[in-house]
Amino acid sequence: MSASPYAALFEPVKIGPVTAPSRFYQVPHCSGMGHLRPQADAAMRGMKAAGGWGVVCNQETEIHPTSDLSPYPEGRLWDRDDIPALRLMTDAIHAHGALAGIELAHNGAHAANLMTRAPVLAPSEASIETLYPKQARMMDRTDICNLRAWHRQAAINAREAGFDIIYVYAGHEMVLPQHFMLPRLNQRSDEYGGSLENRVRLARELLEETKEAVGDTCAVAFRFAVDEMAGAGGMEAGGEGLEVIKMLADLPDLWDVNVSGWQNDSVTTRFQPEDGYQNSYIAAVKDITQRPVVGVGRLTSPDLMLSMVQKGIVDFIGAARPSIADPFLPAKIRDGRVEEIRECIGCNICVSSDTHAIPIRCTQNPTMGEEWRRGWHPEEIEPVEASGGALVIGAGPAGLECAMQLARRGMDVTLADAGEGMGGRVTREGTLSGLGAWTRVMEHRLYDLRQRGNVQMFTQSRLDADQVAELGLPHVFVATGARWRRDGVGRRHLEAFPVDAAMPILTPDDIMDGAAPPNGPVVIYDDEQIYMGGVLALHLAEAGRDVTLITPAAIVSPWTQMTLEQDRVQRGLIAAGVSTCTGRTMAQIGAGACTTHGIYGEAERTHDCASVVMVTGRARDTALYDALMAMREEGKIALETLQLIGDAAQPGLIADAVYSGHAAARALGQDAGAVEAAFFRREMTALS
Amino acid sequence: MSASPYAALFEPVKIGPVTAPSRFYQVPHCSGMGHLRPQADAAMRGMKAAGGWGVVCNQETEIHPTSDLSPYPEGRLWDRDDIPALRLMTDAIHAHGALAGIELAHNGAHAANLMTRAPVLAPSEASIETLYPKQARMMDRTDICNLRAWHRQAAINAREAGFDIIYVYAGHEMVLPQHFMLPRLNQRSDEYGGSLENRVRLARELLEETKEAVGDTCAVAFRFAVDEMAGAGGMEAGGEGLEVIKMLADLPDLWDVNVSGWQNDSVTTRFQPEDGYQNSYIAAVKDITQRPVVGVGRLTSPDLMLSMVQKGIVDFIGAARPSIADPFLPAKIRDGRVEEIRECIGCNICVSSDTHAIPIRCTQNPTMGEEWRRGWHPEEIEPVEASGGALVIGAGPAGLECAMQLARRGMDVTLADAGEGMGGRVTREGTLSGLGAWTRVMEHRLYDLRQRGNVQMFTQSRLDADQVAELGLPHVFVATGARWRRDGVGRRHLEAFPVDAAMPILTPDDIMDGAAPPNGPVVIYDDEQIYMGGVLALHLAEAGRDVTLITPAAIVSPWTQMTLEQDRVQRGLIAAGVSTCTGRTMAQIGAGACTTHGIYGEAERTHDCASVVMVTGRARDTALYDALMAMREEGKIALETLQLIGDAAQPGLIADAVYSGHAAARALGQDAGAVEAAFFRREMTALS
Repeated sequence: MSASPYAALFEPVKIGPVTAPSRFYQVPHCSGMGHLRPQADAAMRGMKAAGGWGVVCNQETEIHPTSDLSPYPEGRLWDRDDIPALRLMTDAIHAHGALAGIELAHNGAHAANLMTRAPVLAPSEASIETLYPKQARMMDRTDICNLRAWHRQAAINAREAGFDIIYVYAGHEMVLPQHFMLPRLNQRSDEYGGSLENRVRLARELLEETKEAVGDTCAVAFRFAVDEMAGAGGMEAGGEGLEVIKMLADLPDLWDVNVSGWQNDSVTTRFQPEDGYQNSYIAAVKDITQRPVVGVGRLTSPDLMLSMVQKGIVDFIGAARPSIADPFLPAKIRDGRVEEIRECIGCNICVSSDTHAIPIRCTQNPTMGEEWRRGWHPEEIEPVEASGGALVIGAGPAGLECAMQLARRGMDVTLADAGEGMGGRVTREGTLSGLGAWTRVMEHRLYDLRQRGNVQMFTQSRLDADQVAELGLPHVFVATGARWRRDGVGRRHLEAFPVDAAMPILTPDDIMDGAAPPNGPVVIYDDEQIYMGGVLALHLAEAGRDVTLITPAAIVSPWTQMTLEQDRVQRGLIAAGVSTCTGRTMAQIGAGACTTHGIYGEAERTHDCASVVMVTGRARDTALYDALMAMREEGKIALETLQLIGDAAQPGLIADAVYSGHAAARALGQDAGAVEAAFFRREMTALS
Repeated sequence: MSASPYAALFEPVKIGPVTAPSRFYQVPHCSGMGHLRPQADAAMRGMKAAGGWGVVCNQETEIHPTSDLSPYPEGRLWDRDDIPALRLMTDAIHAHGALAGIELAHNGAHAANLMTRAPVLAPSEASIETLYPKQARMMDRTDICNLRAWHRQAAINAREAGFDIIYVYAGHEMVLPQHFMLPRLNQRSDEYGGSLENRVRLARELLEETKEAVGDTCAVAFRFAVDEMAGAGGMEAGGEGLEVIKMLADLPDLWDVNVSGWQNDSVTTRFQPEDGYQNSYIAAVKDITQRPVVGVGRLTSPDLMLSMVQKGIVDFIGAARPSIADPFLPAKIRDGRVEEIRECIGCNICVSSDTHAIPIRCTQNPTMGEEWRRGWHPEEIEPVEASGGALVIGAGPAGLECAMQLARRGMDVTLADAGEGMGGRVTREGTLSGLGAWTRVMEHRLYDLRQRGNVQMFTQSRLDADQVAELGLPHVFVATGARWRRDGVGRRHLEAFPVDAAMPILTPDDIMDGAAPPNGPVVIYDDEQIYMGGVLALHLAEAGRDVTLITPAAIVSPWTQMTLEQDRVQRGLIAAGVSTCTGRTMAQIGAGACTTHGIYGEAERTHDCASVVMVTGRARDTALYDALMAMREEGKIALETLQLIGDAAQPGLIADAVYSGHAAARALGQDAGAVEAAFFRREMTALS
């Protein structure tokens, strides 16, 4: 240990009355599990502790029915009835020697109280954040007294549930203590409004009262957004942000500082490729407070971590997404296995789980969220019982993951890809504007595969069924992917529309293959409505092309709302000079123009263009699989396993492809019934 | 009984091997409770049975992890583990002598399987319905065999859970048996595609196999959408719809027929004021089948019901929404209390609960969804313990409901309204285009109040605090409502924007008060984004005005997506010649024009207009309440109760105002702790 260049990261650090065993700190992050799936949440958090995180926190935790985030399953600690579920989590964390933290939250008008139907509380009269016909009520003195009492009781209950660190939360523009600080939300004229001192009063009271209630045995942390990244329109680190820190300096036992809102704190690599991007905002905090400071910024590089500690920017390396991508990141640094770190690609699929109100998932780590349900461990996998070698055809995300896990299980693995290089769609999409970091999905797996003696890899190896038969490997996994459709069939168009053969039609595959649309204006028709349409529009515009994006959706790349990117996508397109035309479907494509009509029946419109890029549906490439199935049925090939995985089985996210490859590798040699049963496992409501 | 003109509605009717005690049939409808809140769902369904519904069904019930509708809490019967929760429901229904029905569903590509991450199944390769990066896979033979086995097993499990009627479901464009029937979704070339016979094959097999499995003791119902209301673009009652009925004629034990999709089946009064609107689509069904037929169409009139039975259109009076608005509708007809029926107003707030994934609620029936959580009964309320009379100030939805429930509790009630008539916002909004049926909220309560000797009602009675004091009533409920703001503060605008005094500014209140915008073009600025903007635009356009609707939202009246109305709203505006301008916020309002900029920073644009209607936030009218509070604090008035209710407490839906009035009336005389505790009651996840 002492020889490790990173030993400083493994020093214990005192936080008030408790001591963290290392500087690795999983800051609170949503899981899409929360109070609905406490066993799954506990198992996931416990895995982080097992992986060496010295502090593992839960997520924002509702402290009262007036902070009801239903239908989103966040944490919940309304009263003592919630303690047993939370104790599962603290037990799981403590089992590995880590500290457990809880982020108490009253969400004010960020909560809509749609289940409880309780009043929505805010510093001033205001609209609620959710698009729902309800307004928030300005809190009166009684409301504020009540809130303080609820928070105090929640802290006491949290201690009873076993938490070591108890948060007062004022970040992400999601909670009352921060709402009170912001003049645009707080127009009060009493002692809680007006001056900054007044606007900080609520946070101060909550800190004082939490310390008074549990501070003898628990640390009291303050999560605070020092900057809203909105210039003078919001709190700024160079302005009131710093003032708040000065005011409260040593009151909390720990400062967990970041930027706000969530779309800034968890910005994607597409829009912020640099790790440690929050350092400039938080660097001054440690100059002010004597208390330990935790900061975040998609930190995956041990050298950057070390320098941040050595430079005195932070005491703790905070992480949400990097700890999701690799729960064993600290252990790998500790054990000198830095190259094995599964680096976060910053795609925000984890975030999209929370925004969809479903259990967390991760592109890089297919076991994320499956610790309880499927019993998956991110680093461990059982040796295979099956005999003979495996052939994995296609080295995209599904094939790479499948091959890697099979190799880890001890199988002899042959991985063959028809392309020039490895990685399939992640390599290809990684060539597009903003998506470069996605190739980490390939790099991590390729590195791993290359370390192993039981793996052979081939590129430029397009196999046909006869060649597969000749190889004679009993276990065949077909990961031949999907190709973008050229015929216009997509989300809204269930059938192809007329296309004049004189109009050049390109697909995203063509662009990723390096094709450039012919000279002249390009229309991108986005009837997929996920991210690709906006990515290509920017990609082509950056190459100097005249681009019009047409989509039936009401906004550009609507699904990127779920990854918190949509606003940046749209602003990026405007800045790049892309024309957008929303709410319109393609009627037909002619020789030098295409014709659209409005989705509500509005009149046709003609768009002159020299080419059309179709971002619509994808077609699975199952030709090889089908041929093998036919040979197998005819008895011409003896295969113990023949399985379609990844996009070839079902086009979806890269995350789903990785997951599919992982699941297939795990399932090999398992009882089919047990594999099937895993889909049925769920947490259920207690019946009294 | 025999003397009742409606006796025919109370005849028992045989359905295969079971017999319904009456013709009142609660067809399957979503509850926002389902597998997450089985106790609440059971209590709600049981209340329907108590109210005289002869058949009470649950809702679409997932039969397998490949039909995972998460995060929407529909019914779930994946395996035997789900039986105990469903048995709560059948027990509750059977306790009142009714039959219990279950709607088994495999949702195909209507399900996204976001929790289970299982493959999405469809007749042909297709996009999924949810905006999520995933495609559905064409089912192969094995998939179809599996589906049939799952359905069969679900039927057996349903019988074990106590259900008497087991559905095969082919409606609302939400389920595989219907997806297979529709050529646009089924492009198969095997025996399940092509001819109608082939496309109906799956439904037929499921019916046959369900009958074979459980048909000896359970009835097998077929829910079938005879018409998609899309002309030749979909299934038509006059075409294949009728052919399907001929093909399957007497195979099911019961036909539950309707139109599709959900937005057509559950059309609002705003767009379809007529009850029984589905009769023309379903009238031919009984000519073909010997089996009993149930039909729907927002049926609340006993005379219409009777005529539908007598004319041989249906055997059962089907209802979803009318049974939500009044669970005791059958009992009231049976007991000759037809005038007491709480008629559905067709607003689809119930639907919005499901689309928000939250427990069901109803504008007319504030107890809906609260049977378990708060123990509320729609017809029963405890006599009050409090002494002295009550004064309810304001006869809008909150005041009317509060007064009615207090009177039912035996209190002497004085109800005073400042306006010309009763009803407050429901009367006022009822004057707007399409919203006429909403006045039923007032009519029902006014009728009830007029029957009672312990109620005095006054209109044109604006009370001030001194007058309230003079009345000397110990219990005062202030329901003074809210007024639309004139200053532009709304959802997006947290602060007012510049307005030139020369520009006439109107609010929705002005329009409802009868004011007409001055001559010239009208701009409606909708920064509320619920329904009012679109309603007023149509209202003014129908009055011949030149209207432009400007909104920061991406679509017009976005919240009406949750009530399934948005498409009709938008098409209605286009047909009426309203110009719409989405994605823009108000920068300032000048003398003869207003200036907007795009929400992504797009350049300013000027809109000439002669007036602006602000549809933004609402301001609570608490002046009287504040004055009374001040008097009380000064000891100038002795009030046991002084409570703000309805929009004056928190602006929201009419449903929320009614709920607030109801809750206040229930709480009177109750222990404050018990009232508070009700907010905490929830169903929790079992810990193993």
